[in-house]
Amino acid sequence: MSPPLFISMPGNEALAARLVVRSGGFLVPLDVHTFPDGEVRPRLMQDVAGHSIALVCTLDRPNEKFLPLVFTAAAARELGARKVGLVAPYLGYMRQDKRFHPGEALTSRTFAALISGAFDWLVTVDPHLHRTPSLAEIYSIPALALHAGPVLSEWVKANVPRPFFIGPDEESRQWVADVAKQCSAPFAILHKERRGDRTIGIAAGDLSLPDDVTPVLLDDIVSSGGTVIETIHLIKGLSRHAPIVLAIHGVFAKGAEQAIRDTGAALVTSNTIPGRAAAVEVDRLIASAIADIMR
Amino acid sequence: MSPPLFISMPGNEALAARLVVRSGGFLVPLDVHTFPDGEVRPRLMQDVAGHSIALVCTLDRPNEKFLPLVFTAAAARELGARKVGLVAPYLGYMRQDKRFHPGEALTSRTFAALISGAFDWLVTVDPHLHRTPSLAEIYSIPALALHAGPVLSEWVKANVPRPFFIGPDEESRQWVADVAKQCSAPFAILHKERRGDRTIGIAAGDLSLPDDVTPVLLDDIVSSGGTVIETIHLIKGLSRHAPIVLAIHGVFAKGAEQAIRDTGAALVTSNTIPGRAAAVEVDRLIASAIADIMR
Repeated sequence: MSPPLFISMPGNEALAARLVVRSGGFLVPLDVHTFPDGEVRPRLMQDVAGHSIALVCTLDRPNEKFLPLVFTAAAARELGARKVGLVAPYLGYMRQDKRFHPGEALTSRTFAALISGAFDWLVTVDPHLHRTPSLAEIYSIPALALHAGPVLSEWVKANVPRPFFIGPDEESRQWVADVAKQCSAPFAILHKERRGDRTIGIAAGDLSLPDDVTPVLLDDIVSSGGTVIETIHLIKGLSRHAPIVLAIHGVFAKGAEQAIRDTGAALVTSNTIPGRAAAVEVDRLIASAIADIMR
Repeated sequence: MSPPLFISMPGNEALAARLVVRSGGFLVPLDVHTFPDGEVRPRLMQDVAGHSIALVCTLDRPNEKFLPLVFTAAAARELGARKVGLVAPYLGYMRQDKRFHPGEALTSRTFAALISGAFDWLVTVDPHLHRTPSLAEIYSIPALALHAGPVLSEWVKANVPRPFFIGPDEESRQWVADVAKQCSAPFAILHKERRGDRTIGIAAGDLSLPDDVTPVLLDDIVSSGGTVIETIHLIKGLSRHAPIVLAIHGVFAKGAEQAIRDTGAALVTSNTIPGRAAAVEVDRLIASAIADIMR
């Protein structure tokens, strides 16, 4: 079999390069030309005929990324690639899986249908599944959801003395409990009430923290930062140690990352979305899944 | 039959409202919510079940517009609309209809396939067809290309004394000749040599202009403005009247509109893309095509 080829969409070069090294494949340089009117024209700079392809494109801020991504996938296919898969460490459009109000678009389903039409397989990390129990419910292609819990746990074990995990809401319970267990550490779950995109309320209940622990606020996504900042303020009243904010996906709406840092908390995310906070590598996890799926 | 419903994507409100008036239909308000992380959630604010729908969305700067548009179309369909059509007075991604270099994506075909998958029909105005002789070659849905020539001719007849039309290149000959004929006016075609996205050379050959004419520089699209500005400078040496730049689609890359105005030329486009220059209305043309296609 010909070796697997990787293509990095703009911004994903570092992860793609590391996946190439781990997988023993090759990187196909991609030239994405942007015309003065805002349209793009991707060009694969090497022959892909007969090869299995993994396109690397994390899908935060998906609107602008979507067409260039799909154009590149279509080109690879037309130029004779055997199978074209998508490695999207962060998968966008997972929130709107039901109509909360009449007339709303089911963006997660439509997005899934578009991606399923363009690719043969999908690998992602901890998609933000709510009411949709599995990706297979909305993706018609093989869609593998990897779990960052183990690599987060390893990072905490190596870097945090006496961690005490705090989950911001019930939704986080299952995997906060899991990470805490892997670290043999205690955890608590707070109660969150969402009042809008940027307004939330958090209640600590009867939470009290032992004096010598490091509070680790664990969430899957940090976007507006509202939940995190509220929680940090609450924790600060309970502990003399500055909390560590640990998240899988650092989506960071404009200004959010700085606002979190301004609280004095440490901020660490996985590298599903590149950035200053992206210290925990999911590369090995992804490389191994790609090897399986391409086999 | 239930009356046709129109939905305006953000930025297309004025055209949609005028189409509603001309067509005797109704406008369905659309609420496009943008989350802090850049994802959107469109919501149709009225029932659309059983109705025929025309979604109005001109497709300059298409990358950011694509997902919100397709989400809205899918929602209308899921909510029981009979047919969902797209009114895109300007149709993007028409330039790349062949691989000029190995490995290039055929963006026009992939884009056409995506639009064809999301809509039942398409109405547009003078798509920038090059080697693709007709939209039917790449669009698998009924796709109607209207011609702005007649409304441009009417505008010139009403507003320009003694027009002399100038086409910037051979590609423009056919319809410059057509508009000139409808105005009973003379025309000339220049020779253009493209050296890059923003670099062109223009030769006047033996063009000389009668002393009393108003030069009307006619092109289908103005984007970077490079062609137009070169041509204006060339014309200025040949005529004592300031030229009028007349185009169907005012795409205008950043700074282009001002750069053209800075030459002293008048700038007039159709309203396929809203803007300060959009003085020539294609509304009647579009309304009549929609009425036909929805019948």
